Amino acid sequence: MQIASSAVPPASPYFEEARSAEVVNARMSEGADVRLREVMSVLVKHLHAAVKEIEPTHEEWFTAIRFLTETGQMCTDWRQEYILLSDILGVSMLVDAINHRRPSGATPNTILGPFYVANAPEYPNGTNICLDGKGEPMVVKGRVTDIKGNPIPNAKLEVWQTDDDGFYDVQQKGIQPDSNLRGVFTSDAEGRYWFRSVKPRHYPIPSDGPVGKLLEAMGRHPNRAAHLHFIVTAPGFDPVITHIFTPDCPYLPEDAVFGVKRELIAEFNKIDDPEAGKRVGFSSPFWTVSWDFTLATPGKPTRETP
Amino acid sequence: MQIASSAVPPASPYFEEARSAEVVNARMSEGADVRLREVMSVLVKHLHAAVKEIEPTHEEWFTAIRFLTETGQMCTDWRQEYILLSDILGVSMLVDAINHRRPSGATPNTILGPFYVANAPEYPNGTNICLDGKGEPMVVKGRVTDIKGNPIPNAKLEVWQTDDDGFYDVQQKGIQPDSNLRGVFTSDAEGRYWFRSVKPRHYPIPSDGPVGKLLEAMGRHPNRAAHLHFIVTAPGFDPVITHIFTPDCPYLPEDAVFGVKRELIAEFNKIDDPEAGKRVGFSSPFWTVSWDFTLATPGKPTRETP
Repeated sequence: MQIASSAVPPASPYFEEARSAEVVNARMSEGADVRLREVMSVLVKHLHAAVKEIEPTHEEWFTAIRFLTETGQMCTDWRQEYILLSDILGVSMLVDAINHRRPSGATPNTILGPFYVANAPEYPNGTNICLDGKGEPMVVKGRVTDIKGNPIPNAKLEVWQTDDDGFYDVQQKGIQPDSNLRGVFTSDAEGRYWFRSVKPRHYPIPSDGPVGKLLEAMGRHPNRAAHLHFIVTAPGFDPVITHIFTPDCPYLPEDAVFGVKRELIAEFNKIDDPEAGKRVGFSSPFWTVSWDFTLATPGKPTRETP
Repeated sequence: MQIASSAVPPASPYFEEARSAEVVNARMSEGADVRLREVMSVLVKHLHAAVKEIEPTHEEWFTAIRFLTETGQMCTDWRQEYILLSDILGVSMLVDAINHRRPSGATPNTILGPFYVANAPEYPNGTNICLDGKGEPMVVKGRVTDIKGNPIPNAKLEVWQTDDDGFYDVQQKGIQPDSNLRGVFTSDAEGRYWFRSVKPRHYPIPSDGPVGKLLEAMGRHPNRAAHLHFIVTAPGFDPVITHIFTPDCPYLPEDAVFGVKRELIAEFNKIDDPEAGKRVGFSSPFWTVSWDFTLATPGKPTRETP
């Protein structure tokens, strides 16, 4: 007995240039994990679309194979070249943005970076986290509030930055003092915090690997705009992983990892007043930064309105 | 004196989710290589579009980072896991198709694969390239012609295939005879060639690395449909890198690297006739394959008509 054929014949399983992504995606089993199938089918669709638009020669394709291979082989326990690639192509920022959409007025996220250290020393407000005495002294102060401006007491503010040579303490163990330019502060009953440090400066991401070569070929430099890192957390609020940027850094519009958001550029004021310096324990001149963090309550992330 | 501002203000250099790919691509220098800029801007555009469609969690993003890293680290001098990845995602076939668009009627290309060896032994027509005596005997014969059917004499036909256990000679040095199932033939004055071998069988691509795990997660198997490899070259004609597939292989519609094209599936006829066997030096039964190669003259590749 012959089975009546269905009205629409099944599509050919064989490779055809015009249907290439469709042929590849049709091969996945319906029994495979639903999310993996979704992810892979989107990746294959866009990958094939990109290849069709680029029309690479065989040599160009092999250059890409070699680049991807070398990027993997550059990775060690302390060097993640693929994260660096994700960073310089803006993918890390995009993934962060997708996962941290916040109501207007809330402090936005930016990338965490590889130099965060959990369990840094906890300090009383006012402490100077610069332990090597190098750089231009700076006072940072402000408030942690909710969206409506109500103070958030007991918020935890984790801060870290490079020293005046452009290195984090963990990049120079044994050279810098332990936990140099790194500390945890707690907001007071009015949501206020303050600490002392040095003005941050720009520094290059590691550029001696395949990603550095790609940056150079694209006519880009490896410098990150000067910034301080913060993680601000308080019970009942969405944690904020962010930076404060100096407004005078030449690399501000060219941050190598696209970490700069307009809302994260602070005002840095230079104070040349010995009396004022004496009040914060600095010799004049020194820098002051006022910066408030506005925390949102956790909500389901929603698609950005186009 | 103030310079009059241009009518359209320059776009912000700072990261915004909606403009993410645009912000990244605007960073490339106009002094960079034109082709590199073109390739990177297409890649960034599609990569950001894929990320926006997928909306990966941070954990999913990190799974991708780890996969890309491990794929690079699996590569050695004799194992290219990124080419394998390109193969199983249909990218290798797509790049081949883009670079080898031929007029209708010409023998199409398929992928070269990693087991081609230059300078294989040259044999007179009729030689048996199976040196280990294993498998079902097979005679392959046919003609090499141009698009109009005119014979191409002195065409070089390089052929290679696995042994009956599914391994190429170069995968089993010291186990298989040197140059087992590999040889070069030359078409005669009428464009004819013929040789003896064994019926090819399916075999798995290397599946013990990250690509094998991905295949498994997608509910796919690593098997290649049974085939013979050919490179056919003749002065004045576009070289053809291709396969002949057996029609009865269960993996024909599921070739792990999408190498099968409908036009490359041959007829394999089983002959159970001791007299016919005697004429080709085989004991009965044996297989016969008739296969003609049609070479095109080199032309500028053109975009496929949609």
